[in-house]
Amino acid sequence: MTDRPGIVITGASGRMGQMLIKTVLASDKCRLVGVLERTGHDWIGQDIGTATGGQPVGVAVTDDAVEVFAKAQAVIDFTAPAATVGFAGLAAQARAVHVIGTTGLSDDDLKAINAAARHAVIVRAGNMSLGVNLLVQLTKKVAAALDEDFDIEIIEAHHNQKVDAPSGTALMLGEAAAEGRGVDLKDVSDSGRDGITGARKRGDIGFSAIRGGDIVGEHDVLFAAAGERIVLRHLATDRAIFARGALKAALWGQDKAPGEYDMMDVLGI
Amino acid sequence: MTDRPGIVITGASGRMGQMLIKTVLASDKCRLVGVLERTGHDWIGQDIGTATGGQPVGVAVTDDAVEVFAKAQAVIDFTAPAATVGFAGLAAQARAVHVIGTTGLSDDDLKAINAAARHAVIVRAGNMSLGVNLLVQLTKKVAAALDEDFDIEIIEAHHNQKVDAPSGTALMLGEAAAEGRGVDLKDVSDSGRDGITGARKRGDIGFSAIRGGDIVGEHDVLFAAAGERIVLRHLATDRAIFARGALKAALWGQDKAPGEYDMMDVLGI
Amino acid sequence: MTDRPGIVITGASGRMGQMLIKTVLASDKCRLVGVLERTGHDWIGQDIGTATGGQPVGVAVTDDAVEVFAKAQAVIDFTAPAATVGFAGLAAQARAVHVIGTTGLSDDDLKAINAAARHAVIVRAGNMSLGVNLLVQLTKKVAAALDEDFDIEIIEAHHNQKVDAPSGTALMLGEAAAEGRGVDLKDVSDSGRDGITGARKRGDIGFSAIRGGDIVGEHDVLFAAAGERIVLRHLATDRAIFARGALKAALWGQDKAPGEYDMMDVLGI
Amino acid sequence: MTDRPGIVITGASGRMGQMLIKTVLASDKCRLVGVLERTGHDWIGQDIGTATGGQPVGVAVTDDAVEVFAKAQAVIDFTAPAATVGFAGLAAQARAVHVIGTTGLSDDDLKAINAAARHAVIVRAGNMSLGVNLLVQLTKKVAAALDEDFDIEIIEAHHNQKVDAPSGTALMLGEAAAEGRGVDLKDVSDSGRDGITGARKRGDIGFSAIRGGDIVGEHDVLFAAAGERIVLRHLATDRAIFARGALKAALWGQDKAPGEYDMMDVLGI
Repeated sequence: MTDRPGIVITGASGRMGQMLIKTVLASDKCRLVGVLERTGHDWIGQDIGTATGGQPVGVAVTDDAVEVFAKAQAVIDFTAPAATVGFAGLAAQARAVHVIGTTGLSDDDLKAINAAARHAVIVRAGNMSLGVNLLVQLTKKVAAALDEDFDIEIIEAHHNQKVDAPSGTALMLGEAAAEGRGVDLKDVSDSGRDGITGARKRGDIGFSAIRGGDIVGEHDVLFAAAGERIVLRHLATDRAIFARGALKAALWGQDKAPGEYDMMDVLGI
Repeated sequence: MTDRPGIVITGASGRMGQMLIKTVLASDKCRLVGVLERTGHDWIGQDIGTATGGQPVGVAVTDDAVEVFAKAQAVIDFTAPAATVGFAGLAAQARAVHVIGTTGLSDDDLKAINAAARHAVIVRAGNMSLGVNLLVQLTKKVAAALDEDFDIEIIEAHHNQKVDAPSGTALMLGEAAAEGRGVDLKDVSDSGRDGITGARKRGDIGFSAIRGGDIVGEHDVLFAAAGERIVLRHLATDRAIFARGALKAALWGQDKAPGEYDMMDVLGI
Repeated sequence: MTDRPGIVITGASGRMGQMLIKTVLASDKCRLVGVLERTGHDWIGQDIGTATGGQPVGVAVTDDAVEVFAKAQAVIDFTAPAATVGFAGLAAQARAVHVIGTTGLSDDDLKAINAAARHAVIVRAGNMSLGVNLLVQLTKKVAAALDEDFDIEIIEAHHNQKVDAPSGTALMLGEAAAEGRGVDLKDVSDSGRDGITGARKRGDIGFSAIRGGDIVGEHDVLFAAAGERIVLRHLATDRAIFARGALKAALWGQDKAPGEYDMMDVLGI
Repeated sequence: MTDRPGIVITGASGRMGQMLIKTVLASDKCRLVGVLERTGHDWIGQDIGTATGGQPVGVAVTDDAVEVFAKAQAVIDFTAPAATVGFAGLAAQARAVHVIGTTGLSDDDLKAINAAARHAVIVRAGNMSLGVNLLVQLTKKVAAALDEDFDIEIIEAHHNQKVDAPSGTALMLGEAAAEGRGVDLKDVSDSGRDGITGARKRGDIGFSAIRGGDIVGEHDVLFAAAGERIVLRHLATDRAIFARGALKAALWGQDKAPGEYDMMDVLGI
């Protein structure tokens, strides 16, 4: 089909870049029209299929963003802040949807991205999984509906190589719970419980971090009162869901007016 | 405090009646002003505290609904359809809030209750727990937000004396999921999976029933797709939550206009 | 039946004492022959049924341990170290089985108890629940069967009034896991994970503590490797299980030779 | 290293064959010395790396079992009964360890395999995962330690393409529970609970089957009594664990006396 949107993937050699390429190649709703790496990378000029130890797929790795964005209806980008800010301007010029999964963006970076969004569609989110974004929304609603008789605890589990705790997604969920309650997370956050802690403080939001094996990412938001509990749980079992979320955002953005969007808009929740 | 609403409990000798009496006596937001049993019951005329093997509490069991409703601001009623329909009329005459937890009401019963609600506040719900009512709402929203790539399964666990499966609450959750998807539960319901079933049918809503020990009631609504899952879970660990929900409804109803309400209204969700 | 063992409960007015009395009264395998409180307590001389707001049961509260132990085949004792050491001597003189759930015993206390056990049966355990004791055994076996490719994490949840973390039972499970692996828990224990922790250290045993509502006590022992996990879980949903475990120990001890036993002996595991 | 055992994989083009090849290639404890497919298959003569869309690995697909077994210290075989019976004889002649994951073997097949095991090591198991085999052992022990006050329920979850319920592994766990209790599973099995079931029958072993998404395989063995529950849980999150279990069996068998073994022997449990 000629009218399937053409997609460009940035950061072709990274773990997320690889996953995105695989996801786009497997989809019948879009075409892979380009893969980008930084100047000087070994793969420049090679077919991306061959470069990764497989059969050729007919798309060569390039370092020329301007040329390859000109062929694209969307750019999916999980790289680093400086690169992403540059891509935002170029994608906007090409009128391509720019899906941004890059994290660690500064306020200045966000301003630059926002400026680019005057001319094109940008979808930006810290976590591209549909399920996690839905869970964030639910957490906020439930925290708003229930009073402090319900103690809120956020429990997350990740693989044994993760270097920080709690996870960024656990903190997003904590922020959502705090917002639902009309409080500031930093005033009520309780993580690293250990030793003689005293009784739990009413209104606190607790965090627990489990680490083991190759757990992709599991999050529980527990609301515990006397006699009953509600748990909102998300299990990610395959990192491909983050790639699929990004692709869904790229397709969703095709007929939207210029502006900056997030996964809540994509999901319609 | 003289302005704490006076509550009447019907069906004083039943398991739920007992729980309601205990809950009202323990609350500082209301007073127990009467307990009702059917004519001829052994307890009529006795103090309800003494009748249940404890110290007297100053409230005698009566079979005179008219007299006792006249002193009440609310009547909490988990009895049987015929009794409940009668109480609805009498409570309306007394302008008392009528909280109905009775199940198995016929269409004619519902009409009679609806007629009574023209003159007084009636709150009626199949499950009075705040958590379950919230879960029903969440289930509908999530089912509407996600497409059929997410398989819906409802798993419930109850004590070993329960005689039916799936539980009424599981079916409520199934109805909510079906409504969220815009389908009819009876067209997609799949319970009692056993033997050579073939692959799961896309769009089905599955039910599993676990039975053991004295489990009060646990419900999971699972949305399972490739690579991720969302679970909405409710655990009831104490039957008192149903009594507390009913009491909350009785207090909530004090300043409302006549009409028929449900726990969603009480919760404001 | 005249040959049902007679049981004495110490600490009659405490939460655990009350639960034990209720459990013994409800059992058809034993008789309640005495309840003990400290000299000067209001209840001395009163019927224990009346004292707790119910109907009389024909057993008066006493402060005379010697007299009441003389009628007993077993004494169940969840009090404090000093009292328990005294009771151990008196129970041994009366040749009554002494079931000890008291915690915080010093080495000297343990020596005194051990001396008493030369003349009578003593069953002592930090947790009287059958399930938890079984879980401790299983944890040790599984930790011995699996190598360090399986990361061990212990996750516990308790009510919001608990003042310490991890729970004593979580630490028992950690000790069992460490013993199974042939390591010392204090060398591998990792609790209170928070902030930039670095990757998980191979061989560590992690602890997480969840606090909320009125959770009685839940413990998970997780063994997580690449691609698979084993979880050993215990849920306590009613404190009565601790009383039932103690009563089971009292009955089990009736025909045993003098000596000190634990719940593993009672369970036969 | 020259003394790493050489492994042959049968059924090279199947899903499990592919996983086994990948696992052997990734291991530094063995070498891939041959891959077998049936005569006439397209891949015969091709390098197995190239045949699967990757780079060559230096091992050509063959249909000559005699020749390739001669170079092997072990044969790993997840194929079909007729093929497996033939391979058992050939592997025994070559004195290679034969690891059999094939299911659906008849009594005659089992006799033939048993005969081959007089001359060589055979390891055969319905489920090669270490975790599941451990869970089977634990289930038997716990069922033996607890009486019928603990209701046993087995709950399994699998992907939405699975065509039967309960899973074979759930049935293995049910058999282990029944054996632990000294009863026959077919007398106490209760699956497909639906409708007006009546109260749970004491001593029954219940089964529930959850189907959704791409769940690899999850099994819970629940022991539920009044006031407490034990759960033994296994989660498989990657089919590679079955391949790794098979490889572990192949290496374990290298220095064993001829005979038929199972995964319990390999695990030493």
